[in-house]
Amino acid sequence: MKHFVSMKNLSEHEILQLIKLSDEFNQKEIKPFEKQLFAANLFFEPSTRTKMSFTVAQRKLGIEVLDFSTDNSSVKKGESIYDTARTFESIGASLLVVRHPEDNIVQQLSEQLSIPVINAGDGKGEHPTQCLLDLITIHQEFQKFKGLKVAIVGDIKHSRVARSNAYALTTLGAEVSLSSKTDWQDETMPFPYITIDEAVEHADVIMLLRIQHERHQGQTLMTDEQYLQSYGLTIEREKRMKRHAIIMHPAPVNRGVEIADSLVECERSRIFKQMTNGVTARMAVMYRLLQDGGISHANGFNQRSAVNSR
Amino acid sequence: MKHFVSMKNLSEHEILQLIKLSDEFNQKEIKPFEKQLFAANLFFEPSTRTKMSFTVAQRKLGIEVLDFSTDNSSVKKGESIYDTARTFESIGASLLVVRHPEDNIVQQLSEQLSIPVINAGDGKGEHPTQCLLDLITIHQEFQKFKGLKVAIVGDIKHSRVARSNAYALTTLGAEVSLSSKTDWQDETMPFPYITIDEAVEHADVIMLLRIQHERHQGQTLMTDEQYLQSYGLTIEREKRMKRHAIIMHPAPVNRGVEIADSLVECERSRIFKQMTNGVTARMAVMYRLLQDGGISHANGFNQRSAVNSR
Amino acid sequence: MKHFVSMKNLSEHEILQLIKLSDEFNQKEIKPFEKQLFAANLFFEPSTRTKMSFTVAQRKLGIEVLDFSTDNSSVKKGESIYDTARTFESIGASLLVVRHPEDNIVQQLSEQLSIPVINAGDGKGEHPTQCLLDLITIHQEFQKFKGLKVAIVGDIKHSRVARSNAYALTTLGAEVSLSSKTDWQDETMPFPYITIDEAVEHADVIMLLRIQHERHQGQTLMTDEQYLQSYGLTIEREKRMKRHAIIMHPAPVNRGVEIADSLVECERSRIFKQMTNGVTARMAVMYRLLQDGGISHANGFNQRSAVNSR
Repeated sequence: MKHFVSMKNLSEHEILQLIKLSDEFNQKEIKPFEKQLFAANLFFEPSTRTKMSFTVAQRKLGIEVLDFSTDNSSVKKGESIYDTARTFESIGASLLVVRHPEDNIVQQLSEQLSIPVINAGDGKGEHPTQCLLDLITIHQEFQKFKGLKVAIVGDIKHSRVARSNAYALTTLGAEVSLSSKTDWQDETMPFPYITIDEAVEHADVIMLLRIQHERHQGQTLMTDEQYLQSYGLTIEREKRMKRHAIIMHPAPVNRGVEIADSLVECERSRIFKQMTNGVTARMAVMYRLLQDGGISHANGFNQRSAVNSR
Repeated sequence: MKHFVSMKNLSEHEILQLIKLSDEFNQKEIKPFEKQLFAANLFFEPSTRTKMSFTVAQRKLGIEVLDFSTDNSSVKKGESIYDTARTFESIGASLLVVRHPEDNIVQQLSEQLSIPVINAGDGKGEHPTQCLLDLITIHQEFQKFKGLKVAIVGDIKHSRVARSNAYALTTLGAEVSLSSKTDWQDETMPFPYITIDEAVEHADVIMLLRIQHERHQGQTLMTDEQYLQSYGLTIEREKRMKRHAIIMHPAPVNRGVEIADSLVECERSRIFKQMTNGVTARMAVMYRLLQDGGISHANGFNQRSAVNSR
Repeated sequence: MKHFVSMKNLSEHEILQLIKLSDEFNQKEIKPFEKQLFAANLFFEPSTRTKMSFTVAQRKLGIEVLDFSTDNSSVKKGESIYDTARTFESIGASLLVVRHPEDNIVQQLSEQLSIPVINAGDGKGEHPTQCLLDLITIHQEFQKFKGLKVAIVGDIKHSRVARSNAYALTTLGAEVSLSSKTDWQDETMPFPYITIDEAVEHADVIMLLRIQHERHQGQTLMTDEQYLQSYGLTIEREKRMKRHAIIMHPAPVNRGVEIADSLVECERSRIFKQMTNGVTARMAVMYRLLQDGGISHANGFNQRSAVNSR
């Protein structure tokens, strides 16, 4: 891998390797890189979880963090994202993590730079490290993907998470269905639509999406309670889920909208577990990119020696 | 100690232990924790001194810092403080430092989380690490608390520092008096009120408070000079202080309001010394919380072995 | 050196020593300071490159970084820059890096503090580390300064870079000429003015300046294309440059204004190389200040032992 901007180009084998590497980082001690490395986190949109998760992952790998905040930067002087990125490359960054409100801009950027670029969410495009942590969470639970029934529920059309997950899960052999209000359906995605009531009885994994209020400005939505009752995961619906089925959500959760407040931390919720998995997922991605870029090899590291048995 | 959100529940013994531990950090080399630890600093209000002081303390203990800034975070997407805090817990934070404009919110949060929470100032509630560094500064000067006369001067009613200090000093055997404009007095606090002119002649410690302009919006105040002459520490009043008496202020100082500009760095001022003590005070609190939470023990550390003689 | 606020007071010998030290940091491994040191970066104006460059330089020297952002600080409570700086000194900072919109304020501050202060750009005053990295870039190219023809082109009057560079280059024996719109000329600088067309044929180094749009509020400028054609480096003009001549710019570049877009990364452009040199330039300055302040000596370090052959 040279960059990590989309799940689309990854083979089943490549995805399973990243899941395995993440699992190893979870269980074993990490040998740091011998060379001092710098990663630049360029967030052009608000983020808590993703940015902080990358930061923890970087520090666990022993990588120095350059934290770029749009507000206090030369972006205020009109500098382009390309020039900003090249600046970080010039001062010594070994990889870039980029979140940006425009679709496909991270993909474009990756084609112009010689250091690895990681997409941390681009507009309504993709959010591949979120997808990877979702896959890791499912794999921890079921140790397989083949034949698993996954229902992706909510604002499909505006979700960069839905797209990445639907395609990757299909690549891995899971059966994906979608559940959404009519106007939030995305007709370009070749998956069957079912109701939330069908979904809870049918699925091994209920994967809720966040309503992107900030991308629906000016629309009149129904009340939160109406939405929950019509399309969300209520307490009543949770009771009809299969015994082993789990609940997922990329967070931040709109409590009482996509999901009843009390279910966020119920027994079958993996919502905070997903966040925990985000750290090792990002470690795996960065480790792989640096290794494939020759940095680990240059220092005599390879995947085998990077993680030691305790 | 499980959390550190208030001075109220601390016994004399517990306070003296923290002062002693701070003193040890001041004088001896620190053995870092063996495990890589992360602390999350969640500041929902502006801060220079407290936030940076925690940062220095964390780095001196070898703890990695996760710096949460409200402006660029999911708080903009409406996430609650509880969900934000749980996120940091999920991605690996071993302790949280929280400043927030609402009274008592840090106390509530601490009851909901399994990792230690430190109150770095909550509304008009408490600011216990500021109190601790004040106590350390007094102890450095007088090596005792019993019988010491401490006058707390200024905006008592709106001060989270006044409350923490008055109670803790009483617990330690000091004699506390208060001095304030009538409308800034707090009748719920059982301490005698005296004038500033009485205070300077009577007290071993003049503890000035900051006028919280940001909490007095819309009020018509007298001019700065009028305030200084009526209620503040003027050059003339400083001359009437006892020979050994000291001046304290939690800062930032409104120069020429609470205190004459030239007195801020006069011989008996301990204002910048207080800031220096803030670092070891916070080291002591974090070290104790992590130790009591089992983290030092897990790595074979205890207080005795943590600090080595030079 | 006690502080680094201006190029004016530096002798030729001192400048050449800093260039040599920077060069050594570029080529050899660095032995970190034995003591844990803290640097505070106080940026009262937006910056990407300078701030991040200092951060990388600090981490490469093993120095801990205290990142001060005006927005979330006690500056919002009205604290002066002096009190802010004294706060950082009190909590343990061993040096300060300061950018500020007011001319000369960093010079003043340095006279009031006992720890080293580095000017990272003050208003229309100076930007001496930018100057140093420019000198390093020229020295890498030509291995000398004597007799070199350097044309500084653009908004001379409002540029803190122009001033620092013109004087330092003269000290080092280069021949400086200036090129500018009439109303951007600075009559107090004793250097000849030439046209851009003369400059490209005459100079070994074309040093472009950034148009400081944020310092020209309310002025009616010509269009970008008109400016480029009249005063900027067009594709046509670049062709008339001497074979070995190089192009420099402190960035961020206004592409298509000071310079044709496609020239920013052309063969003779050193624009991104300058940024790379900024890191070792700042390492050299900070290393020298700490060493001259007795910190390296206290730990048994001196310049000779600080850098080891690979």
